[in-house]
Amino acid sequence: MIVEYPEVYVAGVGTTPFRQQPDIGLVDLAVDAGRRALDDAGLAPTDVDGIYFGNFLGRSLEGQGVLASIIAVRLGVMGVPTTNVEGACGSAGMAFRQGALTVRAGASDVCLCIGAERMSAASTPEITRVLAEAGEMATDGIAGLTFPGFFGLVASAYAHVYGLSREHLSAVIMKNRDHAITNPNAMFRSAVAAETLASAKPIADPLRLFDCSAICDGAAAAVVTTKARAQATGRPLVRVMASEQASGPVGVNQMTTLTTFPATTTCAERAYKAAGITALDIDVAEVHDCFSITEVVDTADLGFFAHGEAHEAIAEGATRSSTPGIVVNPSGGLLGRGHPVGATGLAQIHEIVHQLRGVAENQVAGAQIGMSHNLGGAGATATIAVLGRA
Amino acid sequence: MIVEYPEVYVAGVGTTPFRQQPDIGLVDLAVDAGRRALDDAGLAPTDVDGIYFGNFLGRSLEGQGVLASIIAVRLGVMGVPTTNVEGACGSAGMAFRQGALTVRAGASDVCLCIGAERMSAASTPEITRVLAEAGEMATDGIAGLTFPGFFGLVASAYAHVYGLSREHLSAVIMKNRDHAITNPNAMFRSAVAAETLASAKPIADPLRLFDCSAICDGAAAAVVTTKARAQATGRPLVRVMASEQASGPVGVNQMTTLTTFPATTTCAERAYKAAGITALDIDVAEVHDCFSITEVVDTADLGFFAHGEAHEAIAEGATRSSTPGIVVNPSGGLLGRGHPVGATGLAQIHEIVHQLRGVAENQVAGAQIGMSHNLGGAGATATIAVLGRA
Repeated sequence: MIVEYPEVYVAGVGTTPFRQQPDIGLVDLAVDAGRRALDDAGLAPTDVDGIYFGNFLGRSLEGQGVLASIIAVRLGVMGVPTTNVEGACGSAGMAFRQGALTVRAGASDVCLCIGAERMSAASTPEITRVLAEAGEMATDGIAGLTFPGFFGLVASAYAHVYGLSREHLSAVIMKNRDHAITNPNAMFRSAVAAETLASAKPIADPLRLFDCSAICDGAAAAVVTTKARAQATGRPLVRVMASEQASGPVGVNQMTTLTTFPATTTCAERAYKAAGITALDIDVAEVHDCFSITEVVDTADLGFFAHGEAHEAIAEGATRSSTPGIVVNPSGGLLGRGHPVGATGLAQIHEIVHQLRGVAENQVAGAQIGMSHNLGGAGATATIAVLGRA
Repeated sequence: MIVEYPEVYVAGVGTTPFRQQPDIGLVDLAVDAGRRALDDAGLAPTDVDGIYFGNFLGRSLEGQGVLASIIAVRLGVMGVPTTNVEGACGSAGMAFRQGALTVRAGASDVCLCIGAERMSAASTPEITRVLAEAGEMATDGIAGLTFPGFFGLVASAYAHVYGLSREHLSAVIMKNRDHAITNPNAMFRSAVAAETLASAKPIADPLRLFDCSAICDGAAAAVVTTKARAQATGRPLVRVMASEQASGPVGVNQMTTLTTFPATTTCAERAYKAAGITALDIDVAEVHDCFSITEVVDTADLGFFAHGEAHEAIAEGATRSSTPGIVVNPSGGLLGRGHPVGATGLAQIHEIVHQLRGVAENQVAGAQIGMSHNLGGAGATATIAVLGRA
């Protein structure tokens, strides 16, 4: 049977500021971002016929299930399917993909995808403990391996295989902090000096304080819809060219390498095939830089650079918004914008949609194709969305 | 654009026994059910190209995220999209619907939907506390309202509006316990006498011990696939005629009535429309009898009886497997089979698939159309699948 699937569009995006704002509740953050995305699409809550909610820590920290239903009630969206999805720090990327699939399946015309996280009300030891639940607790968690520890191992392995200096890691941070300066929703809006980064508090060798994305609170959302409904809004349109997902090993003992994430490479292969493009066709990308080293690995896994060459290319400025070629994390990325984990994947979509509309703060001139890449756990899951100017 | 969507089929189902078996891990249960479903479909783990995992309590009780990825690794399914979904006691019904949507969207050919729950390792106070996270914690949870308490309120409201005796509630329990006798996977395989039910320990007036489904451990799974792949297996086929979902109020203060669940009525309306049937066309149903009163409310909400008449009809035997007309919960339902909450929706699918294949223990002669109804929280979410003999 030959089936011609409907095209899927993003008609609206919204984000709260990413800040340490512990007095705002998780549901309040989610509802705020959801309303902003609907406003951006020129749609009302009563137009929504499906909600996906991506979140990682709410269950552990707030002790509340069925959050998507609670958010629906608060938004005034009654009776629609409301589904909670979890994929660690990749939860919002998953929520977006489920929305896109549901529209493509003809089961939703206006699907609201929201990601949110509230972190800063908890203590750092508590947050570190619950974030570790994104790894294999039975082997890695019980041994005391935290995420800074895991990505410290990744950086050490990369240094061993390809060579890696403090300056290579700092180049990622300085670029993303520079990009974040003009992003009104970013947590960090100031440049940082190389000396500051090199002398910062050690976290997990060779990673220091600024190599780690920051604990904060925030939410982001996107309205995913059909072509007809998107056109009817009269708003700028962005087409979903691909929305793919892949899994990988969860625990360190299952990994045959620490210098590539198979979930990302598998997912990228599928996404480029589905979109009918290669990595070279991408003008702008938001990638998952939870740590500085992660962006180095990601940009090779995504095919922007050969494996082993990304750290040099980034240090030479290849991914800066001011230089020609692929621009990576013009929003500031997780290092500049902050990383409220369950919100990140949709904050990435927010930036790429703005880029394709031509209204981003660090606008890539004439951007036609953009992508977002959201990683969960130690590579347990990855999602990629390829979006195109409509 | 006119789109002809592919038909979606269930090619295999599997379930573990539902028991108090605290020595078996949550992932072990899920992997066991997943393998059974694949064996039933005549497929190998390497045939699987997507996994949805429904679970409610694992995050709170086990402190482990990204469970779908962990299950994939254990099953030997590498690289595929692995997504965790949560909708309280309706989590497995959601996992099944996401699988069906993903196949329909052309994004998966062989999607493995698994639901699992491990409960009996925790103490009853601990389980009661985490189950309450399926309600609105900010209003109901903080006031001490537990789920037996909530459904006690439902029973009291029903008694006030329509009249309800101990015998009406006991008729539900006795039917489901009778049905469970021949189900090898059921927790309770013995009949209960009316006097035993009437004199059992009070839990939340008017509900007594046997009015409440039992805490236990178990998993169930289904393989959802395309028509072509399903036919290629050479196994008995069951078609997904509809797979719908709806939400409703979460907290008691949002409810305008306690004698109907809007999530169920909305969902049923959509499911019957999508399947092109009415309630009268259904031969056999698995409905969400988390408490005896819930089955009374469900069977009216689903349109099997007029509102206010279900309790009398059930007491007269209208839904027993031995009498003509609609048969409800031939597996024993949650009251007879046990209710490992995140597994229940797929245990229901398991029973309906067996009914439509003609191989169920309490076989409804010539069953052509069956349905499952899975409720989450205090009606925060409902899913319905309508399945047809292929």
